[in-house]
Amino acid sequence: MTRIDDLPIRDELRGKSPYGAPQLDVPVRLNTNENPYPLPEPLVRRIAERVTDAARQLNRYPDRDAVELRTELARYLTRTAGHEVAAAQVWAANGSNEVIQQLLQTFGGPGRSAIGFEPSYSMHGLISRGTGTGWISGPRNDDFTIDVEAAERAIAEQRPDVVFICSPNNPTGTAVGEATVLALYEAAQAARADGAGALVVVDEAYGEFSHHPSLLPLIEGRPNLVVSRTMSKAFGAAGLRLGYLAADPAVVDAVQLVRLPYHLSSVTQATALAALEHTDTLLKYVEQLKTERDRLVTELRAAGCQVVASDANFVQFGLFDDAHATWQAILDHGVLVRDNGVPGWLRVTAGTPAENDAFLDAVRAVLKESKR
Amino acid sequence: MTRIDDLPIRDELRGKSPYGAPQLDVPVRLNTNENPYPLPEPLVRRIAERVTDAARQLNRYPDRDAVELRTELARYLTRTAGHEVAAAQVWAANGSNEVIQQLLQTFGGPGRSAIGFEPSYSMHGLISRGTGTGWISGPRNDDFTIDVEAAERAIAEQRPDVVFICSPNNPTGTAVGEATVLALYEAAQAARADGAGALVVVDEAYGEFSHHPSLLPLIEGRPNLVVSRTMSKAFGAAGLRLGYLAADPAVVDAVQLVRLPYHLSSVTQATALAALEHTDTLLKYVEQLKTERDRLVTELRAAGCQVVASDANFVQFGLFDDAHATWQAILDHGVLVRDNGVPGWLRVTAGTPAENDAFLDAVRAVLKESKR
Repeated sequence: MTRIDDLPIRDELRGKSPYGAPQLDVPVRLNTNENPYPLPEPLVRRIAERVTDAARQLNRYPDRDAVELRTELARYLTRTAGHEVAAAQVWAANGSNEVIQQLLQTFGGPGRSAIGFEPSYSMHGLISRGTGTGWISGPRNDDFTIDVEAAERAIAEQRPDVVFICSPNNPTGTAVGEATVLALYEAAQAARADGAGALVVVDEAYGEFSHHPSLLPLIEGRPNLVVSRTMSKAFGAAGLRLGYLAADPAVVDAVQLVRLPYHLSSVTQATALAALEHTDTLLKYVEQLKTERDRLVTELRAAGCQVVASDANFVQFGLFDDAHATWQAILDHGVLVRDNGVPGWLRVTAGTPAENDAFLDAVRAVLKESKR
Repeated sequence: MTRIDDLPIRDELRGKSPYGAPQLDVPVRLNTNENPYPLPEPLVRRIAERVTDAARQLNRYPDRDAVELRTELARYLTRTAGHEVAAAQVWAANGSNEVIQQLLQTFGGPGRSAIGFEPSYSMHGLISRGTGTGWISGPRNDDFTIDVEAAERAIAEQRPDVVFICSPNNPTGTAVGEATVLALYEAAQAARADGAGALVVVDEAYGEFSHHPSLLPLIEGRPNLVVSRTMSKAFGAAGLRLGYLAADPAVVDAVQLVRLPYHLSSVTQATALAALEHTDTLLKYVEQLKTERDRLVTELRAAGCQVVASDANFVQFGLFDDAHATWQAILDHGVLVRDNGVPGWLRVTAGTPAENDAFLDAVRAVLKESKR
């Protein structure tokens, strides 16, 4: 039998494992930040209608530029993110992972580097590796906020070509303030001797769940600032794989130099358009989840856990001497949470009230057992 | 206004244009090798059913490993390609372009190179560039067959890490024989001093239209041989973006080291599964298109054109002193064909009988005009 290592794969891939949370069959799964609410039935029917229309032309390539979809995404951002955005400022791809991959192929790549402030969304580093971009692990404070001075110093010294700022940050839930983004943007522009500056990517995958307004208005007058978003969480559509970005139109033009032609299928475009028609309903679920998220923070603290303030649809809690053992103990109670490898901490996704109750019961039981 | 060149993009992207055929609104479009037959209505309904089921769970991530889809693709290959294939030997992605991108990220990339025998599918070179893989343009004979000795020499001298063999070749329609693939495979294994060999990718995007059997059985006992396929053409589903590969299971394991997690949406998987249920009907359209393709060859020759023997759903015809002027003249008659930049030649996709008649009439009229 041939093994991976018998093949002529790249050396840096040898011994690596594919990215992905364990997919276990347990009653309560709160490990991948999915929205627990299925799409409402009227939206399901609308998706079927839109996809039926798309299927009747499926022998033709999709709209390569996804103009209708980008127009509706721009309308959504204009309505909800406090800043008027045009279709020419929006680009969409198969999940925000593909958006990030396209940005790194355009602005990163071989001989270039990207920085993120860790712990953060681990795909930023993994997609950097996958695109041949050097990865720099930047610092964070002990409370998981960004240490602005240390970050500025790291940018000045390392001169990265791409700077990732995840807000709210995954897995910690930490929102990043406007002042921090502006400071790091300035540092990133100043660090590059060629005057072209570095690209700053604000990853707002969980933006809709924040107590704070979107950082999107900052793209105005800052051509090297990109905000990335996804329909996976707020739109309850992780299965759809629809990520997008908003930025200067020149950035949208630039990523088209590397995007695979016709990358976004007709059925994906049709399904996303249907979901955007139901924005108001879906955003009501977001409000419910924000309430539940706040309840998780309160009740975990009451149970004796340390909890990081969260602006996302998940909560990082600890501190555990052996986080992985605690992860297993919670799993033994039928609840799957996530061990992101942050020493002492675990992450739980806000589920339905019943799921969250089951999780809180499990945590209380585990804490009680550990005191025996 | 910010222009692309004001942004800190990679130097090799400066001055480049996005890949893509002109999308013009003309009566007869025979320029992108689409299947002219819309999906039959029973299949459209089945897609709606399957997508409805998927939409009810759209809040959850898709099956990351696409097991059901890979199982059905393996069953299809086993039935039609003359070789028993298991699900573990199949991998699927958003179009064969993404399959190729994943292969290049795994087996090519910075410091490595890939070779293709040109003219061939230009995305092989473009995706190589996009993944930081050096591109080597290998030779072809004047009749567009592969010059085996010259190709072997190029491989021995340049020692590429990835070898592309497109069969039937796009844009020429030329099928590649088993003996040629085996000779180039041996050359690719011998050329690499480290003994690990090079990956050989046989791109069979148009495989179903060939007069010859698939080259798929060659993967047996050759772990560095990959066959890539697509549902865009034979399944009449260019809008679906579903490409796949068959190879040793170790290759499938290897590409999972670079694939974006959950890259293939639930709606894409559902739609592809519906189409696979209707394989027999769709393959009947393939037979009609093969007949029409053969008719195009015959009638173009009768009209005085040179025509390259074709095993695809398109035909390369010439010779024109100014192929682009002829392209424009045919367009002026309401028929859009493709100028792939092969000096003297144009490419026409086999459409419906009526579309092909319109095309043949246009060519005859243009040839008549040019003689005046």
